[in-house]
Amino acid sequence: MDEFRLDWERVGRCGTSEAVLCEPKSVAQIDAIVAHAVELDRRLLLTRLGPRKLDRLSSASREALDYDAPTRTAILGGLPAQTAAGRVAIVCGGTSDIRVAGEALRTLAFEGEAATLLADVGVAGLWRLTERVPEIRSHRVVIAVAGMEGALFSVLGGLVPCAVIAVPTSVGYGVSEGGRTALNAALASCASGLAVVNIDNGFGAAHAALRILGAMRLPGVTTAAD
Amino acid sequence: MDEFRLDWERVGRCGTSEAVLCEPKSVAQIDAIVAHAVELDRRLLLTRLGPRKLDRLSSASREALDYDAPTRTAILGGLPAQTAAGRVAIVCGGTSDIRVAGEALRTLAFEGEAATLLADVGVAGLWRLTERVPEIRSHRVVIAVAGMEGALFSVLGGLVPCAVIAVPTSVGYGVSEGGRTALNAALASCASGLAVVNIDNGFGAAHAALRILGAMRLPGVTTAAD
Amino acid sequence: MDEFRLDWERVGRCGTSEAVLCEPKSVAQIDAIVAHAVELDRRLLLTRLGPRKLDRLSSASREALDYDAPTRTAILGGLPAQTAAGRVAIVCGGTSDIRVAGEALRTLAFEGEAATLLADVGVAGLWRLTERVPEIRSHRVVIAVAGMEGALFSVLGGLVPCAVIAVPTSVGYGVSEGGRTALNAALASCASGLAVVNIDNGFGAAHAALRILGAMRLPGVTTAAD
Amino acid sequence: MDEFRLDWERVGRCGTSEAVLCEPKSVAQIDAIVAHAVELDRRLLLTRLGPRKLDRLSSASREALDYDAPTRTAILGGLPAQTAAGRVAIVCGGTSDIRVAGEALRTLAFEGEAATLLADVGVAGLWRLTERVPEIRSHRVVIAVAGMEGALFSVLGGLVPCAVIAVPTSVGYGVSEGGRTALNAALASCASGLAVVNIDNGFGAAHAALRILGAMRLPGVTTAAD
Amino acid sequence: MDEFRLDWERVGRCGTSEAVLCEPKSVAQIDAIVAHAVELDRRLLLTRLGPRKLDRLSSASREALDYDAPTRTAILGGLPAQTAAGRVAIVCGGTSDIRVAGEALRTLAFEGEAATLLADVGVAGLWRLTERVPEIRSHRVVIAVAGMEGALFSVLGGLVPCAVIAVPTSVGYGVSEGGRTALNAALASCASGLAVVNIDNGFGAAHAALRILGAMRLPGVTTAAD
Amino acid sequence: MDEFRLDWERVGRCGTSEAVLCEPKSVAQIDAIVAHAVELDRRLLLTRLGPRKLDRLSSASREALDYDAPTRTAILGGLPAQTAAGRVAIVCGGTSDIRVAGEALRTLAFEGEAATLLADVGVAGLWRLTERVPEIRSHRVVIAVAGMEGALFSVLGGLVPCAVIAVPTSVGYGVSEGGRTALNAALASCASGLAVVNIDNGFGAAHAALRILGAMRLPGVTTAAD
Amino acid sequence: MDEFRLDWERVGRCGTSEAVLCEPKSVAQIDAIVAHAVELDRRLLLTRLGPRKLDRLSSASREALDYDAPTRTAILGGLPAQTAAGRVAIVCGGTSDIRVAGEALRTLAFEGEAATLLADVGVAGLWRLTERVPEIRSHRVVIAVAGMEGALFSVLGGLVPCAVIAVPTSVGYGVSEGGRTALNAALASCASGLAVVNIDNGFGAAHAALRILGAMRLPGVTTAAD
Amino acid sequence: MDEFRLDWERVGRCGTSEAVLCEPKSVAQIDAIVAHAVELDRRLLLTRLGPRKLDRLSSASREALDYDAPTRTAILGGLPAQTAAGRVAIVCGGTSDIRVAGEALRTLAFEGEAATLLADVGVAGLWRLTERVPEIRSHRVVIAVAGMEGALFSVLGGLVPCAVIAVPTSVGYGVSEGGRTALNAALASCASGLAVVNIDNGFGAAHAALRILGAMRLPGVTTAAD
Repeated sequence: MDEFRLDWERVGRCGTSEAVLCEPKSVAQIDAIVAHAVELDRRLLLTRLGPRKLDRLSSASREALDYDAPTRTAILGGLPAQTAAGRVAIVCGGTSDIRVAGEALRTLAFEGEAATLLADVGVAGLWRLTERVPEIRSHRVVIAVAGMEGALFSVLGGLVPCAVIAVPTSVGYGVSEGGRTALNAALASCASGLAVVNIDNGFGAAHAALRILGAMRLPGVTTAAD
Repeated sequence: MDEFRLDWERVGRCGTSEAVLCEPKSVAQIDAIVAHAVELDRRLLLTRLGPRKLDRLSSASREALDYDAPTRTAILGGLPAQTAAGRVAIVCGGTSDIRVAGEALRTLAFEGEAATLLADVGVAGLWRLTERVPEIRSHRVVIAVAGMEGALFSVLGGLVPCAVIAVPTSVGYGVSEGGRTALNAALASCASGLAVVNIDNGFGAAHAALRILGAMRLPGVTTAAD
Repeated sequence: MDEFRLDWERVGRCGTSEAVLCEPKSVAQIDAIVAHAVELDRRLLLTRLGPRKLDRLSSASREALDYDAPTRTAILGGLPAQTAAGRVAIVCGGTSDIRVAGEALRTLAFEGEAATLLADVGVAGLWRLTERVPEIRSHRVVIAVAGMEGALFSVLGGLVPCAVIAVPTSVGYGVSEGGRTALNAALASCASGLAVVNIDNGFGAAHAALRILGAMRLPGVTTAAD
Repeated sequence: MDEFRLDWERVGRCGTSEAVLCEPKSVAQIDAIVAHAVELDRRLLLTRLGPRKLDRLSSASREALDYDAPTRTAILGGLPAQTAAGRVAIVCGGTSDIRVAGEALRTLAFEGEAATLLADVGVAGLWRLTERVPEIRSHRVVIAVAGMEGALFSVLGGLVPCAVIAVPTSVGYGVSEGGRTALNAALASCASGLAVVNIDNGFGAAHAALRILGAMRLPGVTTAAD
Repeated sequence: MDEFRLDWERVGRCGTSEAVLCEPKSVAQIDAIVAHAVELDRRLLLTRLGPRKLDRLSSASREALDYDAPTRTAILGGLPAQTAAGRVAIVCGGTSDIRVAGEALRTLAFEGEAATLLADVGVAGLWRLTERVPEIRSHRVVIAVAGMEGALFSVLGGLVPCAVIAVPTSVGYGVSEGGRTALNAALASCASGLAVVNIDNGFGAAHAALRILGAMRLPGVTTAAD
Repeated sequence: MDEFRLDWERVGRCGTSEAVLCEPKSVAQIDAIVAHAVELDRRLLLTRLGPRKLDRLSSASREALDYDAPTRTAILGGLPAQTAAGRVAIVCGGTSDIRVAGEALRTLAFEGEAATLLADVGVAGLWRLTERVPEIRSHRVVIAVAGMEGALFSVLGGLVPCAVIAVPTSVGYGVSEGGRTALNAALASCASGLAVVNIDNGFGAAHAALRILGAMRLPGVTTAAD
Repeated sequence: MDEFRLDWERVGRCGTSEAVLCEPKSVAQIDAIVAHAVELDRRLLLTRLGPRKLDRLSSASREALDYDAPTRTAILGGLPAQTAAGRVAIVCGGTSDIRVAGEALRTLAFEGEAATLLADVGVAGLWRLTERVPEIRSHRVVIAVAGMEGALFSVLGGLVPCAVIAVPTSVGYGVSEGGRTALNAALASCASGLAVVNIDNGFGAAHAALRILGAMRLPGVTTAAD
Repeated sequence: MDEFRLDWERVGRCGTSEAVLCEPKSVAQIDAIVAHAVELDRRLLLTRLGPRKLDRLSSASREALDYDAPTRTAILGGLPAQTAAGRVAIVCGGTSDIRVAGEALRTLAFEGEAATLLADVGVAGLWRLTERVPEIRSHRVVIAVAGMEGALFSVLGGLVPCAVIAVPTSVGYGVSEGGRTALNAALASCASGLAVVNIDNGFGAAHAALRILGAMRLPGVTTAAD
């Protein structure tokens, strides 16, 4: 237990649970963390766990984890009851962005928040987006996921009043390789009020959405229902 | 009227009003825009209007505008009634970040949203921040403004459950000149769920906060008051 | 005459005339070039000639030049007869991009090609663009001019079959300062077949348009009129 | 069919067909797209499909596709009748650039446009280029493909009146690794009017050429044949 | 012996021993260096020696070396007697940073300097750090190791009077990939007086600590004990 | 007093005093800070205070401050008694680096630490450095200040056993403009154990030196004198 | 004399004289250096001395210096007898590059080496270069000066057997602003064997030429004359 | 023969032979080039030919080539008689730089020019360099090869009058990964007159040396022997 200290109090302090970023951790470290959480009977979300690293985990770890290959996420301890859908929409610019969108979806599910996924609504065929605007507008938070030049963020931001969280992805080549172009496009958008997270950070986008939804539950908020 | 078309419908579509970014516009263009809005009896927010450019505007424009030099903002048509404070806190890492924080404050005020400003609570003297955490936690949205290395974002994000919007500033020199270091620190924060806007973009942070608060007003949200 | 050699043969070889980029040249060099062209009775286009440098030119140069301050262009020897409009449309994302669009317009006019300017049709208010798509589609070449995140390029590219030349501008701040974000967005666009020129290079966009239009005049092209 | 929506209308709207960028897509996604197109009896172009990913596709996909390894392109549904050659020349700076040139060639062929390929005419041996200038000048559009320092673009641009589309490639090492040096050289060329596409984007260059050629077919263009 | 000349005098001149950076060296070169040191009966530290390269070394080399896989270090000739602990603390932001911290630990041990390792005290759960501040303050030199946004450096620097050496790590993705964000955060820290070394350079941090401790041993220093 | 909170406890907590970075602060803010410190009868160091901004301060501020133009520093409340020299040497690569070296010197003097300045000992004339090595070696801490390519850091680091703090400066043009080249050279030095601070950060280098010297004063250190 | 130490022995050691880079030095420093050299009756070259700084020098300095405004160089102590021309050619891509070429010319003249300047032979009009190739080939060393995309370096390198020194200039805008594009083009040139110096470094190019010519004078070289 | 055209005339025009950069070429392309050269009975140098690609070449190619694994070079047609040594010295900063130095050595040998290799004379142990300065000074051209921070270039440049060609290498990690830091250090060196080539470009350095030596052979050069 020397090499890690899990922050179980985070959910109370910040409204979201600690998760384990697996990519830079060794197999031994991940095994130890999983074993520790199992021992404490805690639920845990693991992100960026590649299939090869999964295969090298102990069989105890592998059996305990609910692994989803396309999103490279694993969940220990199962999912809680989900809210009724309708609060969060995840809108994807392209087919290639679905893996990042899926990370957001799984992270939300881990915290009990259902979400709607709308795939392949990129702006090169603008009709794919505009025909779904009414559906998107019915959500409180929209997570927009796009790579390449990230034009989706601006178009979407100009069409909906929702809180919009932009997730640039590393999809692209040449000048868009690595995701900096999409990231900068989100940050410099002419559609104001977009909130941006790190490249490929579906996990962080989900947590930002949860912070927003959590803020709504605080006492004293005046809503339309009052 | 050839050179601009104001998007008066934006507030209905997106929940926030169009504003005029003055920095890249000519004096003639700004004068024409102000005259047009006056003629239509519209309210308007102007941002990044430097004092030298203000001096070169027509006297008609200057008289019509309520100008605030430290934040380089000007407001046409006065402020609406403000909400009771308590929904948005603006937390500043250093004295030098106040000009950006002020842009956010003025933008919120333009839309009728009061906010609380907490200045100079940088992490080099951590006690300045920790003693104010309870006060900060009582807000729904926190706009955090910091330059240099932007460590404030992570520390704050780990201490409050609010929606946190990080505004990196261009304050700093050497490797932090221009604000990229603070921006990247916000995006790569180990405190998850931070929402980030462009460097020095107090205006955008305010609009992101308004989108979040607006989403709460939509019908059907279950709150703790229910 | 030691310091420059004008390439008068360029128009025959490349279809477009040599022009004088004034920004990096000294006042003495510009005066000498203008005097030389006057002596040869040649027409000449000067670009990026700032108002302060203009003021320091010899009175002979200043009298000979038709100067346009917003576009920082000067023309020696007047304009030729213009073609009927309808071949080139110049579409501007924002009011601040008009100075670059104007450079393209003046360059086209110098070669006798009339063009249509559509200003302030940025994607944050998408209706401003979509309502003008039929008009834009009626042109053979579209020069799209936009700064900040450059989303206009992708949206426009997905709506028209014309040759599209994207001109990113240096309008913006933070991550979009200097125009790299808009440039990369144009290059990485999900709308395929966009042709891109250097940042703020309205002149180059006009020359690219002229090369395209010139190619149409070559013998042997089969057109719809056949 | 949840994960993709093909934009079959694009060819009518933009003059060029949608294509499938395979690099960031999963094997399952590509298989599903191919199966869907087969079912609809549609032709389809796939780009950046590496040989290892090809091997992992379903046998149904592999049988349906006409794969070309050097260019990493696959075509579903065969090629249409080709135009007579002579409208597009593809000029390669070096032997290593042929794979990108080939992507352009295949993309043009998919749309029925024949093209001429001139390989290894780099400027280090200038005679290789100058002796072929008359042949190059006989085409309407020239696609120039070069890596390293990209000097070919400027030299070629100064010798021909054609529409020139520059495709920088990632060929090179040290400061030219990744293609940024060649890209910037194309954008900053002293030969004016070059149109540039993303690094290694032979596909995009072909689409830009098709937009240009398509613009010629629009009614009302006056040509030398008239 | 043509390809290398070991600088055995370095320890006398600089207070720290020469070490062998294995990453860019060939297997033959490393084998020759080890054989040479064995012949001279010298101790030697090897860094950045990956497990695959280790496997390809001669059996003589492998037997002579004490290899530690997680830190990729190998030691020839054993360790000297260690000082009593208490002079150097190594503080790790996250579990993933331990491999770099371990390189520092092994380098110190090679020179006979014991150190205390405090793992996983990142700022997202600030309590993990603050509860250990008294322990950290009891050391003369603190080596702080952190990736991602590197906020640990500033928080720690503001809480302790020790000499602080910041080691940014390449842990992170998106904007923090490669470690530049953590590096810049360390350099731009609002907590003054931090000393920074290269990304992932645990070895260099240990040497900087040894230079500091060595300076204390010089004659004529007035200490509290006097 | 709303806009700043001075951290007077810092010297007890960190061993160095808070200072005021003037560059990004307004004249009104600096005046208020100085007045506040005067009222509390506190000493204060101000850095990066340009002569033009000094001229715009209130006369009360100007009279209270001991200003040094070349180093752009101002001291309120005078200097304490200085230690005997001999603990810190400041070594300058070039004449142009003296302004940064001077900032370090003044910062040390503010804390009562005398230092020796050795100017213009750059490596292009290596004899200038080597003839002074014995003198440099007699100090405990060496602050090395250099711009351009920063080769001084490596040469010096290979010749002395002292703690070496490298301060890269923004002196240079072309690839060294802004100081990144010197910074990277310090970080990547083949002479191990160099500690690096931000570009032009003489202030930070002095604070790092003070942390090191302070660590020596802690009880229980064994020195050569024992 | 504290702030500088001139390296008068450099010419014996390296074959070229020390020079004074004025840009980062203060007026007081330059005055002191000039006075010192006058006192010793030494010749001295000053570079990057802007006209405004010149005006602020002491009258003694100004009278002693032979100043050339376009090249921003000043010479103290006059020029030596010049060699017969014909060993060094300086070839300029554009009129704007002449100021850098002039710095090389003056530096060569300071050391007594005459040179031939060929201006405005950029590759956009290739005939301007090719018609002068025989003249260029008759020199031993060619200094090529070009900004923007720097294609001149490759074309020239492929046409002559001389030693070629490429000097990229900061002439250009957008992606070529600052000179990095021209620099990278020189380094990545497909014409092999080009030697490159820093951006705008006419001085350094001249010194590289002098090193080359000096090497020829060493005893034992076999030349065609033997 | 469609895909390549070898420039056999280059040696006459430029003084150095065309070579084949193998890294970006396909196995089929390299095989075809070798077969073509064999057929013409030409000598040929191949560079950057990795061992795995070599293994995939045809047996005819492999038998025809004299391959050297450490330098990744292959020579077709054998070596010519070598000059007496003493004109070119190759000085290596570290053991890891020898592979690049070896590429230079092989390239020189291909053209018949013998050279002296001095390995591992980096500046961290300055005595390794200074004790060999007299030997280095006896050569006309010095090729200096160094990675990491590249301080060797400046130190060497300040000690010898020879023509110095700096070859930065990609040896290093963190900020020096890829070689940019060493490259920039060479370009910004305070030792004037260094000529720089691309990162890892031992081949180009050799060609630059050959251009310099070739220039000496031109008729009319006055040497010390005269």
